[in-house]
Amino acid sequence: MNSHIVAVPLDKAFRLINHGPTVLVSARYAGIDNVMAASWACALDYAPPKLTVVLDKTAKTRELVENSGHFVIQVPTVAQLNLTYQVGHRSLSQQPEKLARSGVEVFGIDGHDQPFVAGCSAWLACRLILEPHNQDCYDLFIGEIVGAWADNRVFSDGHWNFETADPAWRSLHYIAGGHFYAIGEATDVRAQLED
Amino acid sequence: MNSHIVAVPLDKAFRLINHGPTVLVSARYAGIDNVMAASWACALDYAPPKLTVVLDKTAKTRELVENSGHFVIQVPTVAQLNLTYQVGHRSLSQQPEKLARSGVEVFGIDGHDQPFVAGCSAWLACRLILEPHNQDCYDLFIGEIVGAWADNRVFSDGHWNFETADPAWRSLHYIAGGHFYAIGEATDVRAQLED
Repeated sequence: MNSHIVAVPLDKAFRLINHGPTVLVSARYAGIDNVMAASWACALDYAPPKLTVVLDKTAKTRELVENSGHFVIQVPTVAQLNLTYQVGHRSLSQQPEKLARSGVEVFGIDGHDQPFVAGCSAWLACRLILEPHNQDCYDLFIGEIVGAWADNRVFSDGHWNFETADPAWRSLHYIAGGHFYAIGEATDVRAQLED
Repeated sequence: MNSHIVAVPLDKAFRLINHGPTVLVSARYAGIDNVMAASWACALDYAPPKLTVVLDKTAKTRELVENSGHFVIQVPTVAQLNLTYQVGHRSLSQQPEKLARSGVEVFGIDGHDQPFVAGCSAWLACRLILEPHNQDCYDLFIGEIVGAWADNRVFSDGHWNFETADPAWRSLHYIAGGHFYAIGEATDVRAQLED
């Protein structure tokens, strides 16, 4: 794990996805790793931090999550645009070499037996909170965030630095049909409430 | 309702929030309207289209949603930065004039007895799908999208036009502490998958 990757306190973990980026979901079970893209991931709670993610019944990654009870949500960057699109459109079931073909490299983090995608800006290790009704009816999975990390070239001291970091670090926000937006300029509320 | 507001086909409704914007949640019950901001809203399904939104137990808007069984998710713009922050930090319970003080004007849409916030870029009228366990345990609400509209100065023919519209139309993406990002530049995948 490279020296730019630093732990984020769990009470700040929600900030890593609060701006609604497209994410990569990864999981490992019985020696098999997979990574998929997901637009439908969202923070759910602050303490303990939780999130939701929608995993279609056809997704191989879903099977790995169901079997292992763990998954990683990570935030890909503009530099990973093609990787993100490719892991979202290739299927491991049909292409056993999906990850290599999509340019994915994974690394490990001590204490978390999961595949973390190299080059992302942030990573959230999650423990599946079993909710069979949500999973069956809505393809909706809830995870408790048990570890959080970010690359300090774009997130440090609890804050994203998109406005000063290289634009290649910006998060991706998918619409449809291969069309993404990068996150843009900082827009701060200056005045406090007066009444 | 002004002439720029046009209906969006329900099969394209997910595109209005797929890029993860901060949203406004509005609801009406027994003559009371309220509007709150929410970062934790997310698409859930395509057909019929559904979404999730997290509504804290302290939120007056939640009570209106629970009683009426309906709510509206709308996408505020950079021009509405202060409005968005204010409806997220004021409480109707403590300030009966919250909406006026926050600069909110609402309008109606035929067939939907809900308050729609003027000046937003998109609106999703939702019918609450009752899931008491999710609501009680996770503050998580599921809605079926039963109507969708957008302002054609920034969304037309099923596509966001952030790259060509006035920057004041860009969506807001909240982090924390009054710090937002606007959505940024279009970033398209050019190459199709070759293998």
